[in-house]
Amino acid sequence: MQRYFLQEPYEAKAVFAVSGEPFHHMIRVMRMTPGAKVGLVFEDHLAIIAKIKEADEETVYLEEVEKEQQDKELPLQVTIASGYPKGDKLDLIVQKGTELGAAAFIGFPAQTSVVKWDQKKLQKKQQRLQKIAQEAAEQSQRQIAPAITLLDNAKAFWQSLSQYDAVLVAYEESAKQGEAAMLLQVITALPVGSKVLAIFGPEGGLTPSEIEEAQQNNAKLCGLGPRILRTETAPFYFLSAVSVLTELKRM
Amino acid sequence: MQRYFLQEPYEAKAVFAVSGEPFHHMIRVMRMTPGAKVGLVFEDHLAIIAKIKEADEETVYLEEVEKEQQDKELPLQVTIASGYPKGDKLDLIVQKGTELGAAAFIGFPAQTSVVKWDQKKLQKKQQRLQKIAQEAAEQSQRQIAPAITLLDNAKAFWQSLSQYDAVLVAYEESAKQGEAAMLLQVITALPVGSKVLAIFGPEGGLTPSEIEEAQQNNAKLCGLGPRILRTETAPFYFLSAVSVLTELKRM
Repeated sequence: MQRYFLQEPYEAKAVFAVSGEPFHHMIRVMRMTPGAKVGLVFEDHLAIIAKIKEADEETVYLEEVEKEQQDKELPLQVTIASGYPKGDKLDLIVQKGTELGAAAFIGFPAQTSVVKWDQKKLQKKQQRLQKIAQEAAEQSQRQIAPAITLLDNAKAFWQSLSQYDAVLVAYEESAKQGEAAMLLQVITALPVGSKVLAIFGPEGGLTPSEIEEAQQNNAKLCGLGPRILRTETAPFYFLSAVSVLTELKRM
Repeated sequence: MQRYFLQEPYEAKAVFAVSGEPFHHMIRVMRMTPGAKVGLVFEDHLAIIAKIKEADEETVYLEEVEKEQQDKELPLQVTIASGYPKGDKLDLIVQKGTELGAAAFIGFPAQTSVVKWDQKKLQKKQQRLQKIAQEAAEQSQRQIAPAITLLDNAKAFWQSLSQYDAVLVAYEESAKQGEAAMLLQVITALPVGSKVLAIFGPEGGLTPSEIEEAQQNNAKLCGLGPRILRTETAPFYFLSAVSVLTELKRM
């Protein structure tokens, strides 16, 4: 079922009037007609199944069929922080990471990041990634679209670590040294709703001084299995692991 | 450390003479000089760390430093079978799936596959994917490069299911129905070395008759968490889950 994120909080109504892009997509692109059902997700993350009653030139009118029952969000709020990688790898990280349940994404200039983006470029990039996140959230039937924050200042990033209940750094050397249990230990010990930050270096990895900075801010180093994952693949492993450890086991 | 797959079984030698593509990459592309260390992986999956002694116009000569100790392969041999998806999504599945530890990949024409590839096209595609798998295996420091098999016949595929110790089908409806434990149950019950086949539909999913065909061949349906994953994302979740359940827990 097609799914649309609306920019308003949920409020019980006899009829929901929807215009703008969701209207355009339902009526012009998908050519939906009265009786068709869609998912509507409100700003406060409540989701309903709604049925189209009618449409005019710029608005489609729907009625609520039922509230969505199943919780589609990871039990932990995982923010993926990536040291800026090359090319359009952030696009892939955001698209697949959204499908896999990330709550938010942060980009930051790591010491080995090759790309240097100015404010204007970052703003454009942020808008593009926010759109990718929204589309992926709709497609994967989520209740929130992850927020995208692109920083131009590494210091601000390292100082933000205290906001989280747990901070993990994906560290290749941990895997090489045979460390394999930290991820498991940290994730399974956190109560539902905890905020987790997972930090990934760019292609060249994080430098010893960045690792030290992270550790001074209570980050723990963790391996992601014995194979060396590319910078864009490691977040997929991390998010899947959180799902396996929190969602597959609770049922 | 750069890693090279050689087309010969391991045999203890005072000097390993390497020519062809690995020679070219070491000496011409990476401009390595005597003393540089590389990983050499032999046909029988044994891996050594070797040091360059010297090179001439077409051969580089190396000596063994030590055998590689750590096992980089998943404890289960996982084959990823994808109903042909659109565009170049198979490239992404093979590249990331190799990093995440897949033992082999199979493509097959599913009923909702949009692309129709003839033998000639399949052969070209197979060569391209084999190269992607080899590069990803080198990059992720694995001991094998996964084999790629592209079938032009769905029947042959369904008949091959009996070769495996366990067959799982990623099935969106399982997730919708709240099934969440099958993957966990099957994976954790298998002894080390078991052969697992994981089947993924194309964008349009598997049809009821394909699901029935799979079930008649002892396949079990499993959900991959409550979010709906794209056809190319689902294998990443599956492989990460196998790693979490077999590698992170054993140490």
